[in-house]
Amino acid sequence: MSKELAVILLSSGMDSAVCASIASKKYRLAFLHIQYGQKSQNKELERFKKLVEFYKPEKVLITEVPLLKQIGGSALTEKEREIPEEDEEGIPSTYVPFRNAIFLSIATSWAEVIRARKVFIGVNEIDFAGYPDCREEFIKAFNKVIEVGTKPETKIEIETPLLKLSKKEIIKLGLELGTPFHLTWSCYRGEDKACGRCISCKLRLKAFKELGMEDPIEYEKNI
Amino acid sequence: MSKELAVILLSSGMDSAVCASIASKKYRLAFLHIQYGQKSQNKELERFKKLVEFYKPEKVLITEVPLLKQIGGSALTEKEREIPEEDEEGIPSTYVPFRNAIFLSIATSWAEVIRARKVFIGVNEIDFAGYPDCREEFIKAFNKVIEVGTKPETKIEIETPLLKLSKKEIIKLGLELGTPFHLTWSCYRGEDKACGRCISCKLRLKAFKELGMEDPIEYEKNI
Repeated sequence: MSKELAVILLSSGMDSAVCASIASKKYRLAFLHIQYGQKSQNKELERFKKLVEFYKPEKVLITEVPLLKQIGGSALTEKEREIPEEDEEGIPSTYVPFRNAIFLSIATSWAEVIRARKVFIGVNEIDFAGYPDCREEFIKAFNKVIEVGTKPETKIEIETPLLKLSKKEIIKLGLELGTPFHLTWSCYRGEDKACGRCISCKLRLKAFKELGMEDPIEYEKNI
Repeated sequence: MSKELAVILLSSGMDSAVCASIASKKYRLAFLHIQYGQKSQNKELERFKKLVEFYKPEKVLITEVPLLKQIGGSALTEKEREIPEEDEEGIPSTYVPFRNAIFLSIATSWAEVIRARKVFIGVNEIDFAGYPDCREEFIKAFNKVIEVGTKPETKIEIETPLLKLSKKEIIKLGLELGTPFHLTWSCYRGEDKACGRCISCKLRLKAFKELGMEDPIEYEKNI
């Protein structure tokens, strides 16, 4: 029997790339990239295209959610709000309102049309505990919505293989699976090189350091 | 205490207009109109603007979901597929894959930013039993996703006042509340006048007829 198809929500960040590596072992790949007016979107798209060249998925879809830029509400989408460089109390300012629900709805809609059986998303409870839509409880509730909200013959499940892993463990797993970390992009800013100062860069750099390795991407300055 | 804010998913169809009338009694209004490449989108937008003039909501947002046109999968979005004129077995060809989940996610995201407490959607189990994302079970599951997937201080609930009503009962309620049915648009086709032959036109015409009334919108020919 031929392998089943899986949709991978691929931002081009490390986590979603590791998800792609994991999924590629068992499934045929359908890559979905969503632009939503985030500050890093051009850079992410550029890297997404490189990841497509690397993984050679069977299907590729790039789409947009203009809403999130229109309504703001996040440091990632509002021009006037600064990208934070320190940990924040409570819900981080980089939380994008209900973003993962929008992304999972879109991914499920595509999955239903192309008859994919899984939707992979690189959410993670450990390093992103502050994001309500990155938790197991949310994913579980969403799986129920898929079950009751799609056609009876549709069987789609969300897969979150990184949910309980630390950044360090994610990198380790990615290295074992041959994830091309040099092609990924994590920086919340969208400059030519990663800033090294935003929370996302810091988490990534720290994890590589803990593993005694050098992050293969270029940073603005020597950190 | 001033009234709370409610987001109304307003396509410009009869059902969503009646929802707006209901919501206007208890809430301040925020109208959300979503274009997704459906065949009737220009006509719906034109009527939406007339409904905005009528209801004078406090906030108005028009946004797009390019995905649904990109992926097709429905007679409403695929140019090559005919709009059905007879009832269909099982899931109708006008089902748009997981559309209401995408719409509710978008509405919730906006509601979270503007601090609205309710999201009104005109889904209906009676006349649209074939659509999995129009059923009570789906709405209940989605409310759970909102509860766990938004900020702890966010309290948003989906309201479906038409869920258990027939088209006839919906029209009756709308008449009592002064819903401007002459400004609404139900036809799945987007021609100058409503076609009178698609399932949506037929349902509407039948319900007005049962009430012994004339539908105030114009149809292509005398039906």
